[in-house]
Amino acid sequence: MSAADHHVPEEVYRGLTESVRRLVDVTIRSEADAATLTAVRATIDDAAEELGRAPLADYFGNQPASDGSSRAWGNVVMGLRNPFAPPLIVHHGADGHAWADVVLGAAYEGPPGHVHGGICALLLDHMLGATAHEPGRPAVTGTLTVRYEAGTPLGPLHAEARIDRVEGRKVFAVGHLATDAGVTVRADGVFFRQG
Amino acid sequence: MSAADHHVPEEVYRGLTESVRRLVDVTIRSEADAATLTAVRATIDDAAEELGRAPLADYFGNQPASDGSSRAWGNVVMGLRNPFAPPLIVHHGADGHAWADVVLGAAYEGPPGHVHGGICALLLDHMLGATAHEPGRPAVTGTLTVRYEAGTPLGPLHAEARIDRVEGRKVFAVGHLATDAGVTVRADGVFFRQG
Repeated sequence: MSAADHHVPEEVYRGLTESVRRLVDVTIRSEADAATLTAVRATIDDAAEELGRAPLADYFGNQPASDGSSRAWGNVVMGLRNPFAPPLIVHHGADGHAWADVVLGAAYEGPPGHVHGGICALLLDHMLGATAHEPGRPAVTGTLTVRYEAGTPLGPLHAEARIDRVEGRKVFAVGHLATDAGVTVRADGVFFRQG
Repeated sequence: MSAADHHVPEEVYRGLTESVRRLVDVTIRSEADAATLTAVRATIDDAAEELGRAPLADYFGNQPASDGSSRAWGNVVMGLRNPFAPPLIVHHGADGHAWADVVLGAAYEGPPGHVHGGICALLLDHMLGATAHEPGRPAVTGTLTVRYEAGTPLGPLHAEARIDRVEGRKVFAVGHLATDAGVTVRADGVFFRQG
């Protein structure tokens, strides 16, 4: 990455990412006719060409933030620059418990009208992992078990996770996804703290 | 959905989806300056507005194909109209075994340079589920267990799954993801056949 890149304010990245996320949503849902879709495609190709005229990083990983911490830019669950990320904003309680509220639209579909079971697993892996992370000491997933108790409709979703117990570098975490109607998916996982 | 929508050739949807997928990739990776990013954002907003001028479906689910079968249009793993879908093209062997080859780019990142563990779970849920599906008789995931044996680098990836055994409506499936260097993630799951 060039040093120049750091002069781009985060709001610019956030705004562009939001716009592309919205484009993805209407790309899936639009009932426009073939002529409109073809014309829009040409516009999108021009936009991609314009972005591609600058150097392209292989991937972005974590970038230093102005406060000395690092931020995940490319991360598919919460990356600032990744339109696939809903994004999931994880909140941490004082007791190590973590939660997030998110709204999943048409882009996350599996069974008609429902969140793909694998997307539920993606969110739960991320939530459970978030409880195991410590500053400067990331944790990697060892095993994740996901139990599907009910279908998860597209729409608003609440996610929670907490540490069940710690044995040396192994962190045992549990969590669930829920709608207003109750829990739909539960998970437990074993995470390994690094370093 | 309006009947008119069915007059849009699949190639038009496929092409638009491919273009948006490419836009997502360069959105993440571009090192363009703030002025360029801001100008491109305006173009993308125009494109999204144009698509949104037509009626918008809530979601697309499965659509009838001309041959009488149905196709998952919105599906986040293999949907024709979903830019988030890599897409994963699942091949089926005569013995019920399934495989797929896919290349995952920056949009699927978790740890820097690596596929997000939850994306591995998403692909494996889909692959294992694909072995359990029968024509007209879909299967839903009961439990999925994912074991991470090594990090999965971004790039080309091979996925495989097969049925281990069937007990009534319960299908026990196993599978893995592998790079050229070997297996990185293994999974087993229990799926329930419907109907």
